[in-house]
Amino acid sequence: MQSKKFSIGIDIGGTNTTFGIVNRKGEVVFQATLATAQYPGPEELLRSVHQHLSASIQQLGIAEFIGLGIGAPGANYYTGEITAAANLKWTLPVALQQIASSIFALPCTITNDAKAATIGEMTYGAAKGMKDFFLITLGTGVGSGFVAKGQLIYGHDGFAGELGHSIAIENGRECGCGRKGCLERYASASGMVLTAMEELDRQKNSQGHLARILKQKGSFTAHDIYTAATQGDPAALQTFELTGKVLGLSLANAVSIMSPQAIVFFGGPSRSGKLLLDPVKKHLEANLLSIYQDKVAVIESLLPQNDAAIIGAGALAWEKIR
Amino acid sequence: MQSKKFSIGIDIGGTNTTFGIVNRKGEVVFQATLATAQYPGPEELLRSVHQHLSASIQQLGIAEFIGLGIGAPGANYYTGEITAAANLKWTLPVALQQIASSIFALPCTITNDAKAATIGEMTYGAAKGMKDFFLITLGTGVGSGFVAKGQLIYGHDGFAGELGHSIAIENGRECGCGRKGCLERYASASGMVLTAMEELDRQKNSQGHLARILKQKGSFTAHDIYTAATQGDPAALQTFELTGKVLGLSLANAVSIMSPQAIVFFGGPSRSGKLLLDPVKKHLEANLLSIYQDKVAVIESLLPQNDAAIIGAGALAWEKIR
Repeated sequence: MQSKKFSIGIDIGGTNTTFGIVNRKGEVVFQATLATAQYPGPEELLRSVHQHLSASIQQLGIAEFIGLGIGAPGANYYTGEITAAANLKWTLPVALQQIASSIFALPCTITNDAKAATIGEMTYGAAKGMKDFFLITLGTGVGSGFVAKGQLIYGHDGFAGELGHSIAIENGRECGCGRKGCLERYASASGMVLTAMEELDRQKNSQGHLARILKQKGSFTAHDIYTAATQGDPAALQTFELTGKVLGLSLANAVSIMSPQAIVFFGGPSRSGKLLLDPVKKHLEANLLSIYQDKVAVIESLLPQNDAAIIGAGALAWEKIR
Repeated sequence: MQSKKFSIGIDIGGTNTTFGIVNRKGEVVFQATLATAQYPGPEELLRSVHQHLSASIQQLGIAEFIGLGIGAPGANYYTGEITAAANLKWTLPVALQQIASSIFALPCTITNDAKAATIGEMTYGAAKGMKDFFLITLGTGVGSGFVAKGQLIYGHDGFAGELGHSIAIENGRECGCGRKGCLERYASASGMVLTAMEELDRQKNSQGHLARILKQKGSFTAHDIYTAATQGDPAALQTFELTGKVLGLSLANAVSIMSPQAIVFFGGPSRSGKLLLDPVKKHLEANLLSIYQDKVAVIESLLPQNDAAIIGAGALAWEKIR
């Protein structure tokens, strides 16, 4: 018998807010997107989400929601608040959980986007059935979620899981956080672009795909690096190698703390597949103590890329009632 | 009403095996030590421990034991076995838990020494009442235990918690594990001696305490570095500074994963107090993302140094029945 219960998942980003209705199996039965910055604050944004959903709920004939999950930058699982978030133009702090609960008249759970994705991956994705794993999200930044004994690690204050801001290279590239050498400045999409620029500088007479794009357009993206690498461009291939090197070392050190059975990669650059994951795996293994070697799977997310944020946020609500 | 129940704690080391009887409050009511290498294997060793304890138990009039905890190098909590341990001369693997259970006719829990110390610290020591903290043991090596939500992290295979073998310095000092730059090669007692030797080399005409000891004896210990530092020897002070620098960075990166409320230091070099913990704290803070700054306490163990191993092992047994 199929359950008729549903959850609502909302993923608030700096640019877009995506929301939808998720069933117990992690399938998105409805989804829509609003432009976050069109609304002066979270209350107006969530009222609009509520109105859009109400119409669809009636149409779909859904009777029962078990709850609402929200993934948002800087959202704190314990306090229900956002106190700091570089990407949101709201007046902070914001009592997001309280506002959402009252607008939707549903129990609400909030956490940051990477943690929501981690819960989603554990509930429906590549980490289904795993008790100890890491999720690494690669995109504008580098997010992370760490699971031990089947439980997401929140830390004493809810702020655990910022591997993107661990120091990967001492006195390395400057980071927006005010420090130097954060992993994020090497392994994010923009970090990979910086690495590729350095490689082109080094290979001065490159005739490869990337060099041509740079000449034509004056810049390139992480996706261009991927395309160039598939065509055998040495600068692009070396960029994946170096990105894997930095990620591999940081992850090896994290493995020595938590000994997970897998590291799941989610987001844009990780869709490059073996181009990225092979160098990550190679450098991970090279930096691991022997007791950890050949034990940690390095795999891609199994969540559908476009729905993953909603699925993750929706899974948060199910997580709460387990 | 005071509980009349007790546990037995056994700490097996390469040199000595210390064992004792621990009450519910974490007090050691009896303890003794045997030379590990005098016995050909674990069975003979544990039979001897059992005989020594039996006499004392009768004398003390103890009626009820809830269990037995053993801390030993390489001991795996999940499998009950030791499969690898550089310091033990036994034929491995050894089914330690099974052997001990049968000799003592008691439920037995085993784990490695650093994890036993972590459980001890959480049950009776500086981390009492804490749900999220790290324990770092400094001695011949660097051991570690990580606690999240009040639970020790074992990892998927029981081998979590080897921060001493995370890579602190890329292509750094050679380590006995076959790799280079492990934290242990900098922050252990012998690592500190290497750092001090390098410092004396750098400060060629040092007239300090350490230089004099080196001239007289041809070598010095971590304790000599401590003594020299209390006398203001620049090479010794710089050794603490550099040790704190390496530890501070490694720990900052670990904090970005788990956001603990405290890091507890246990063992020889950490008894140097502020000489070590002040530089650790300084470099920890300097490498932390702002959301973690000024939140993580850096403190010394509160377990009595000589009984700590037995208390930790004994606490393992209580942990099991909680």
